[in-house]
Amino acid sequence: MLVSKLVCERMKEVPQDAKIKSHILLIRAGFIKQVAGGIYTMTMPCQKMSQKIQKIIREEMDAEDGQEVLFPVVMPRELWDQSGRYSSIGDEMVRFKDRGGRDMLLGMTHEEAAVHLVNHTVSSYQQLPVMIYQLQTKFRDEARPRGGLIRVREFTMKDAYSFHSDYADLEKYYYRMYDAYYRVFKRIGLKNFVDVKSDSGMMGGSIAHEFMLITPDGEDSIVFCNDCDYRANMEVATSVIAKGERVDEEAHEIFTGDDKTIEEVCKRLNIPASKTVKAVVYAVKGSADELIVAFVRGDLEVNEAKLKKALGKNVVAYDGGISEDIVCGNIGAIGLSDKLIKVFDKSLQGESGMVTGANKPEYHIAGVDVDRDFGVKEFVDIAKAAAGHRCPVCGGTLRVENGIEIGNIFQLGTKYTASMNMTVNGPDGTAFNPIMGCYGIGVGRAIGSIAQESNDDYGMILPMSVAPWQVHICALRYDDDAVKTKADKLYADLQAAGVEVLFDDRNCGAGVKFADADLMGMPIRVVISPKTLASEEVEIKLRRDKNAERVALDGAVAKISELIASEMDALKA
Amino acid sequence: MLVSKLVCERMKEVPQDAKIKSHILLIRAGFIKQVAGGIYTMTMPCQKMSQKIQKIIREEMDAEDGQEVLFPVVMPRELWDQSGRYSSIGDEMVRFKDRGGRDMLLGMTHEEAAVHLVNHTVSSYQQLPVMIYQLQTKFRDEARPRGGLIRVREFTMKDAYSFHSDYADLEKYYYRMYDAYYRVFKRIGLKNFVDVKSDSGMMGGSIAHEFMLITPDGEDSIVFCNDCDYRANMEVATSVIAKGERVDEEAHEIFTGDDKTIEEVCKRLNIPASKTVKAVVYAVKGSADELIVAFVRGDLEVNEAKLKKALGKNVVAYDGGISEDIVCGNIGAIGLSDKLIKVFDKSLQGESGMVTGANKPEYHIAGVDVDRDFGVKEFVDIAKAAAGHRCPVCGGTLRVENGIEIGNIFQLGTKYTASMNMTVNGPDGTAFNPIMGCYGIGVGRAIGSIAQESNDDYGMILPMSVAPWQVHICALRYDDDAVKTKADKLYADLQAAGVEVLFDDRNCGAGVKFADADLMGMPIRVVISPKTLASEEVEIKLRRDKNAERVALDGAVAKISELIASEMDALKA
Repeated sequence: MLVSKLVCERMKEVPQDAKIKSHILLIRAGFIKQVAGGIYTMTMPCQKMSQKIQKIIREEMDAEDGQEVLFPVVMPRELWDQSGRYSSIGDEMVRFKDRGGRDMLLGMTHEEAAVHLVNHTVSSYQQLPVMIYQLQTKFRDEARPRGGLIRVREFTMKDAYSFHSDYADLEKYYYRMYDAYYRVFKRIGLKNFVDVKSDSGMMGGSIAHEFMLITPDGEDSIVFCNDCDYRANMEVATSVIAKGERVDEEAHEIFTGDDKTIEEVCKRLNIPASKTVKAVVYAVKGSADELIVAFVRGDLEVNEAKLKKALGKNVVAYDGGISEDIVCGNIGAIGLSDKLIKVFDKSLQGESGMVTGANKPEYHIAGVDVDRDFGVKEFVDIAKAAAGHRCPVCGGTLRVENGIEIGNIFQLGTKYTASMNMTVNGPDGTAFNPIMGCYGIGVGRAIGSIAQESNDDYGMILPMSVAPWQVHICALRYDDDAVKTKADKLYADLQAAGVEVLFDDRNCGAGVKFADADLMGMPIRVVISPKTLASEEVEIKLRRDKNAERVALDGAVAKISELIASEMDALKA
Repeated sequence: MLVSKLVCERMKEVPQDAKIKSHILLIRAGFIKQVAGGIYTMTMPCQKMSQKIQKIIREEMDAEDGQEVLFPVVMPRELWDQSGRYSSIGDEMVRFKDRGGRDMLLGMTHEEAAVHLVNHTVSSYQQLPVMIYQLQTKFRDEARPRGGLIRVREFTMKDAYSFHSDYADLEKYYYRMYDAYYRVFKRIGLKNFVDVKSDSGMMGGSIAHEFMLITPDGEDSIVFCNDCDYRANMEVATSVIAKGERVDEEAHEIFTGDDKTIEEVCKRLNIPASKTVKAVVYAVKGSADELIVAFVRGDLEVNEAKLKKALGKNVVAYDGGISEDIVCGNIGAIGLSDKLIKVFDKSLQGESGMVTGANKPEYHIAGVDVDRDFGVKEFVDIAKAAAGHRCPVCGGTLRVENGIEIGNIFQLGTKYTASMNMTVNGPDGTAFNPIMGCYGIGVGRAIGSIAQESNDDYGMILPMSVAPWQVHICALRYDDDAVKTKADKLYADLQAAGVEVLFDDRNCGAGVKFADADLMGMPIRVVISPKTLASEEVEIKLRRDKNAERVALDGAVAKISELIASEMDALKA
């Protein structure tokens, strides 16, 4: 491909709305162009990169007996009513009426379509397990698309669905996919990624893992143990917290004036936050009257994902509207209205000598023994793990890092096959609901993640396996006949040898050419110029290296082919 | 791939709503499964076929310097307001509001997106011409989806857009694409197809060609000359009609009673239809008051596409509502209300001795001399060509055949670049609107067209270049150890030789296996059974042939590879 012809606008300026590195670089290199919020056109280099990633994904899915199919983007409401997701998914799903007035939607994932296809088509347990997958456009109406290709509204996704006779078979297959995911991410050149246990969210089901690229710009928080293998998405991470010393004291009201926050109360009473009880109020989404008070120890935070799971309800932060049952800043479990749903975190169990709100202005209650005074039936885990907490597995110290989710796998169970009445016949002829797993990778996010991880101050450093072109030739003084002749020949020879080449044939200065080559990030840069040709040489440099190497022109194709092979070797799974 | 594992339900019954062969066969072979009207899931064999077609399209587009990009499916209204198509396209375009209340749409074609991308990115005439293309999902809310993959609502389309400095360059490139289209259709195994001149419809622009597969089940009508190369889509086809003998007569009213149709009037007066003037009433869509009366010679029909073009208005059949200006069955040009828009076809020019309506019940006017009595300012071509008419080029005889549109190419001109204010700088620095062309191929429709053309009573006969698998092995008595061992080895050996194989490993009768192999249509069938193994042989048969050939087992891989190569040779463009 000739740079002079490439529809791809490079720019020096950092785009205004781009905050993270991958977003800045993909825009600056002209790989993507925004059409609307979270909606991009991919230019040729980005689309080539996307296709290389897709090819690697296909190879790994096919290796796990996957059958590639194509589900529709637009689906009828009826299908999603069967699973219940037409109503359970919120505004992120686009719904519209077709010209016949029928309710349609843009698919966010394709569990329903997968069950629709496999139902009847597979009728006997003997055909199981089967896995089907697709690479298809998805649209999710994200409230706040951001980060370039990291959080978009429209994207290409690989989504896979497996069907099994029993949980043991799902488990076995699930870990084959788990391994396949490691191979995919390794092969596309990602380096610092891990799998973490995660919440199954809107997918339903029980066990789930996310694959996370570790990066400070990531929006997800991941809890790691410094001393063992324990790691989990913050949403599901658990931790062990040291209990306070036992204090025998009667509960008694104390005047706390206008001090309402944990910080203020602790300061006034000269106690640590761990001796207080924090009360956080939530509302149930779509149910104006249902208020929830979550109690955790004052030095901890409420983990909303865990709270939602514990309640089986979609809770949102309480907007502070008027409720006669709540005295903001002085809420406590003693004497609190029965109209409120109360949830108590495990961190409070057994704690004594605690300070909690008195449910009236200007007063708290001190000397509280949680087990004695709160009348708690059940303590549940709704606290956020935090750096410095103890590991639930080994007791080691936990730390928290940020990450970008690059893939996820779920054990769905029978959520969809049961709700959609899909059965197959078992060995004794009895019909049963197959057990499902599902497995997703966002292709655009993979591109964003690669750009996020592999770069330097000058631009992207693309891995050989996914770079749009393997080699970027900079022909300096291309208006010089000798340069033109030899550069054209090198370009032709490399292509004849099966090498993918981007060839900067423009009549512009070396500075512009080098800057573009660095920005776009092809793994090998070749410079051919009057200077190199004086000794019948070219200059070859790996994008990631500082120093270039001079190579005889007639050995350049062989040298470049070697470099490509060795780079590819390093990316083998 | 093992048939026992393939998620693909074959069926014997003809599906109720399937009327045309390709629809019946694709459903019966389990290639597609309907999710909603005009919306299908493609199973693995169909998706593989789709990918092979896409690969061929890519190769031919790349050969014409195409740059593959990816435009979004969902686009914002603003972009389509610029071109004016947001309002000019009707219900077939899906519109919805996103969660922020912004008007969005599902792209039907991507001229707007193409201009959005190339605008600014290409700034100088020196970068032109450029061609960008994509393979992407499209949704068009067809009023009556039908014919399986022939007329769907959701489909994968290759759409390409070229930008040029002048019309001469567009013209040159347009015919490169024209040639590329012939190569694509030949390579994917279509046989009986032609290009025809066509109407540019909602695309705008002037010159356009459609590529048509000739088949009685086609919905398009194509006019061919038996004696020269003239051919055109019915929408734009012209023809020459013999004029009637000159008759000198005064116009005079005659009583025609309840006879209103051309047929009735001709019978009463004992004259041929060519001696009458037909009047057809149309309304302008969205404009209740504007009525149009189109006049053609009584033996002809009105071509609505031509009428629309002549008027520059979207006309629809008049619903017969009350209009005091119209006396149904007795409409004529003499004395007709001036409130009506009148259009006169060229067929009427110079005709005399004609009978036309008198604009009052029970009367017509005879002895009409069109040029003398109608006061026509301009005759335009709004008549439908028909079999038996004369060719406008050579005077030969025309015939009409049915076809399916498999591709189209358009010379768009500056419709989009001008309306969207896209300019590039010319040699003297003056900004100008680039000239555009656009070029489409529907991938799903190509699959449908192949199934439509290549089949017999038992199923599809897929071309080697696009068949999901090249070979279909039927292992008879697979429960027999010898068969299993040798069939497994043949399957492995063929795959090792790079052959794509579908392997029927099921424990079922030969009849079921042969029926499935015929239905699914892989080009080479290999039978291995106790009988063939008795002489250490297998049976090899081309799907299209009646007779099979016995080949030594140890020569089977070589023989099959030869067959594949010779089949592929025959499909070279």
